[in-house]
Amino acid sequence: MGAVGTLVLIRHGESVWNAENLFTGWVDVPLSEKGEAEARRGGELLRDAGLLPEILHTSLLRRAISTANLALDGCDRHWIPVRRDWRLNERHYGALQGKNKKQTLEEYGEEQFMLWRRSYDTPPPEIELGTEFSQDSDPRYADLGADAPRTECLKDVVARLLPYWESAIVPDLRTGRTVLVAAHGNSLRALVKHLDGVSDDAIAGLNIPTGIPLRYDLDEQLKPTNPGGTYLDPAAAADAIKAVANQGR
Amino acid sequence: MGAVGTLVLIRHGESVWNAENLFTGWVDVPLSEKGEAEARRGGELLRDAGLLPEILHTSLLRRAISTANLALDGCDRHWIPVRRDWRLNERHYGALQGKNKKQTLEEYGEEQFMLWRRSYDTPPPEIELGTEFSQDSDPRYADLGADAPRTECLKDVVARLLPYWESAIVPDLRTGRTVLVAAHGNSLRALVKHLDGVSDDAIAGLNIPTGIPLRYDLDEQLKPTNPGGTYLDPAAAADAIKAVANQGR
Repeated sequence: MGAVGTLVLIRHGESVWNAENLFTGWVDVPLSEKGEAEARRGGELLRDAGLLPEILHTSLLRRAISTANLALDGCDRHWIPVRRDWRLNERHYGALQGKNKKQTLEEYGEEQFMLWRRSYDTPPPEIELGTEFSQDSDPRYADLGADAPRTECLKDVVARLLPYWESAIVPDLRTGRTVLVAAHGNSLRALVKHLDGVSDDAIAGLNIPTGIPLRYDLDEQLKPTNPGGTYLDPAAAADAIKAVANQGR
Repeated sequence: MGAVGTLVLIRHGESVWNAENLFTGWVDVPLSEKGEAEARRGGELLRDAGLLPEILHTSLLRRAISTANLALDGCDRHWIPVRRDWRLNERHYGALQGKNKKQTLEEYGEEQFMLWRRSYDTPPPEIELGTEFSQDSDPRYADLGADAPRTECLKDVVARLLPYWESAIVPDLRTGRTVLVAAHGNSLRALVKHLDGVSDDAIAGLNIPTGIPLRYDLDEQLKPTNPGGTYLDPAAAADAIKAVANQGR
């Protein structure tokens, strides 16, 4: 068996709802102009590092897909094979989707708010079907039928992400290729939790900044030889992680 | 066996080299601003017609990939599965790649110029390897090795396109899906020649306008029930076909 390929994670740039401080989840909002610039910068970082993806995996959400398109266009890798799957989607935020984070904090109080945002296994209330921000009539999830989530905690995201990791991403890594995964704050936290063996408690404090490629070098057992991964722009990543931690305040 | 799906062809919008009247072929130039607008308009036409692609096939060239990205984003189909293949690429223009069309016409004369542009089986001279506009060091064609074309006539394009049509596009159509093919003037002419049974002589007079989706309804034998296809904006298509015919003049 040849060497395992390199895994590169990229969280989508700012979306128009990030900018408005709304819970997004599976609502398919576009990148903001700032988010588009972040994605292009991500492509420049890949290009300058000579870390050129050979296959792409994305969620089914526009903000991750656009981020990948812009980043790959910037490093001349727009032509690589693509796979998309709902299992890379952002955490489904249940009844909070479309709600303002600050108002939610004020309405429900700090404890409940932080539980929904950061506890490993407490999902928000389920979204009501047929409402503005539910996805039950969305054709991209038609195959899921009644299995489509109506809310998720991070534990749920780990559970639905790992089958895709094992069945789709790992086989590509086993071919020795450089694999780019363009996804979301929580689907990438779920993946990093698995890769680095982060505990259920410690994952609450782990944030992944937007638009900065995160490189993982893996051994034959798919264990990172650089635990925690390596950001292609470490200084910008450190600054951004601080900013994410202050969201909703 | 269920009904055969709908085939939708889209030729990429204007590229920066179309705008400069240069032979492009496999040189990977981006869309011009006009080309981006054409692609977005293509997406609007798909959306307004309710003709929503369920799977996408593209060439490996940026102008087709960007056209598909912009069009699908515009009809909320950015999330569909994607396949890309060099067999959908534009005709390789050989030693003419990078040359101005008007200068080439003046240098070689009308007869030779039209032979290279429009004859079915006369390719331009081969491109010299290792030169500015050759693709021999391009990683996306590394797997082709010595089989990578160094020039092509339309007959060559038909020969390399049809195996992909049969092995990749037809199976998707047989699942009943709406299949979008985002490609190029000559790879789409090659496909249309096959679909409509256009003769080697008559194909010279057939032009496909940019950015206007062309719908084919197919019977069980994959024969069009609407021979010649149906443009989603017939008036704009007719105007554009006239303009293409005047290129290089």
